[in-house]
Amino acid sequence: MELKICLIGKGNVGTCFLKLLKERISFIKEMYNCDCKVAAIFEYDGALINKDGIDLEELLAKNTNFRENKFWKKEVKATDLISELDLDLCIETTPTEPKTGEPALTHIIEALSNNIDVISANKAPFFLHYERIKNLADKMNCFVKYEATVASCVPVLSIKRNLIGNRITRIEAILNGTNNYILSRMATEGITFAVALKEAQELGYAEADPSLDVDGFDAAGKLVILANELLNWSKSIEDVKIEGITKITPEALELAKSDGYTIKHLAIAEENDLIVGPRLVKMDSPLNISGILNLIKLQTKYAGSIILMGRGAGGFEAASAILNDLITIVKERNKVNVN
Amino acid sequence: MELKICLIGKGNVGTCFLKLLKERISFIKEMYNCDCKVAAIFEYDGALINKDGIDLEELLAKNTNFRENKFWKKEVKATDLISELDLDLCIETTPTEPKTGEPALTHIIEALSNNIDVISANKAPFFLHYERIKNLADKMNCFVKYEATVASCVPVLSIKRNLIGNRITRIEAILNGTNNYILSRMATEGITFAVALKEAQELGYAEADPSLDVDGFDAAGKLVILANELLNWSKSIEDVKIEGITKITPEALELAKSDGYTIKHLAIAEENDLIVGPRLVKMDSPLNISGILNLIKLQTKYAGSIILMGRGAGGFEAASAILNDLITIVKERNKVNVN
Repeated sequence: MELKICLIGKGNVGTCFLKLLKERISFIKEMYNCDCKVAAIFEYDGALINKDGIDLEELLAKNTNFRENKFWKKEVKATDLISELDLDLCIETTPTEPKTGEPALTHIIEALSNNIDVISANKAPFFLHYERIKNLADKMNCFVKYEATVASCVPVLSIKRNLIGNRITRIEAILNGTNNYILSRMATEGITFAVALKEAQELGYAEADPSLDVDGFDAAGKLVILANELLNWSKSIEDVKIEGITKITPEALELAKSDGYTIKHLAIAEENDLIVGPRLVKMDSPLNISGILNLIKLQTKYAGSIILMGRGAGGFEAASAILNDLITIVKERNKVNVN
Repeated sequence: MELKICLIGKGNVGTCFLKLLKERISFIKEMYNCDCKVAAIFEYDGALINKDGIDLEELLAKNTNFRENKFWKKEVKATDLISELDLDLCIETTPTEPKTGEPALTHIIEALSNNIDVISANKAPFFLHYERIKNLADKMNCFVKYEATVASCVPVLSIKRNLIGNRITRIEAILNGTNNYILSRMATEGITFAVALKEAQELGYAEADPSLDVDGFDAAGKLVILANELLNWSKSIEDVKIEGITKITPEALELAKSDGYTIKHLAIAEENDLIVGPRLVKMDSPLNISGILNLIKLQTKYAGSIILMGRGAGGFEAASAILNDLITIVKERNKVNVN
């Protein structure tokens, strides 16, 4: 089979995906008899378009500017071209816009409406309009996958199919590495939130405007996706009770410590509720992880808790999740084609 | 579709599986259009056989002795009947016999040779004769699944397909809950190995003869399966350098602690080697888990380490892994049937 791909967004995640695809493209050909061709790469101000497949070696060579590539077309837009390129798969990696989910939402809807499978690393469309996207994908018999949106490389969405004989009943998670880094540093060094935040910014763990992280919004968006996927809910971010970490003091952490606890910023789905906020956690709890890691604890009906842990961010981390989704789609489509 | 099952071994795991199947049988029917029928349950001294399906409600009712069931036949053997019962799936839950893997090995070979899919909770055949079983399954186009053999409910074998776009390069794991419990207690309480072992035995975490655990053999068997599965190796337990925990002293733990370390019993697969033995682990490492949990750290090429953690033993824990395998097989067989 041939898989004609368009990538929307050539930022860090998009570029890492192209690098990873280049490295794995012959493996995919060999193992799954699938020719991957990147037919288009869209950016906000134009696109590279080559129906025969963009030369990834050339594109990713050092010191090349992709806007100077001979296939670059200024000012063309994904929304205008998705339907015309005879695509099989659309990969969305534009930056998250938390209020509207645009332009990713429109890209995803447009792709699915044209019978094109979708992989998204952009989470906003899913914490805002989960049900709408899922229903459309079902109606069009298309795959829509978004493993990279929660805990990046940690396969915490697709794990559902590994636990299909069990039943997940509750989720407790650390979904924002920035906040976990800040709280870990405050706990071990006794420094204030402001000092720890500055340190995180200097190390590149926190944005210049850190509000989406420290106010809890980022974790809340991921929690919505996680709960909808694993618990079969249909919530949106408006359903989450959100509290950030900005009010936590070294004194509060010290007090917790004297009782054998620390404070973690947890995302919890239980009964019918979604909650993001600071919680006391025992010092020897598996939830007491340090640094920028993410952790997801799945309470199950038949086998206690199953915990997954790993890096929650990073270009290649997200790219590896996208490639997992891509190969899963190839395998499924192959089966359909073969029979 | 109909799924005619035989269960071999009605111990704790086998009985928990029957209970779980009873609870989920209508879900499987509804979701996957599959009628599960247990046609036979073999024990060492006979079997319950009913080609129309054993009544699980009646079988599992309180205060019933299954050897008094009207379908009980004394002294019939699985090996004589597997080929005659028109089975689709054979589930092996007999106790592990570490030197020969028997009688489980013969059951598995017999089932596969008769074109019957296999799920095993018995690990010995897989750490002794992995390649032989896999080759036979491939030749017969049969599924052979054994998620329950390593870390029971934690889906650490099937996770391979969730990471298919990535590449696992190294494994570091805590695969024996008994040993981890003993070392945790020695580290926190300053007690000797002998005292901690006695405590573990009193709590039911360690066997009367604990040698398979404390000498490292149990962890080594699981490591072989894990490495063969995730790293595509073809090793057997003879390839593992094994050291147990019996020589660890409270003094050694105290010394480690004074440098910020503790001692854990690790199972490691790296480069071409399989090693089980005590290792120094930093106090704040994610590997420093306490109690009877299992932990598996998968080093990946593209996304750092991904860690899975959960209960490594228990009847319902293993049963949930068996049911995951069962539903995965049903889904695959359904696809084949549908098309």
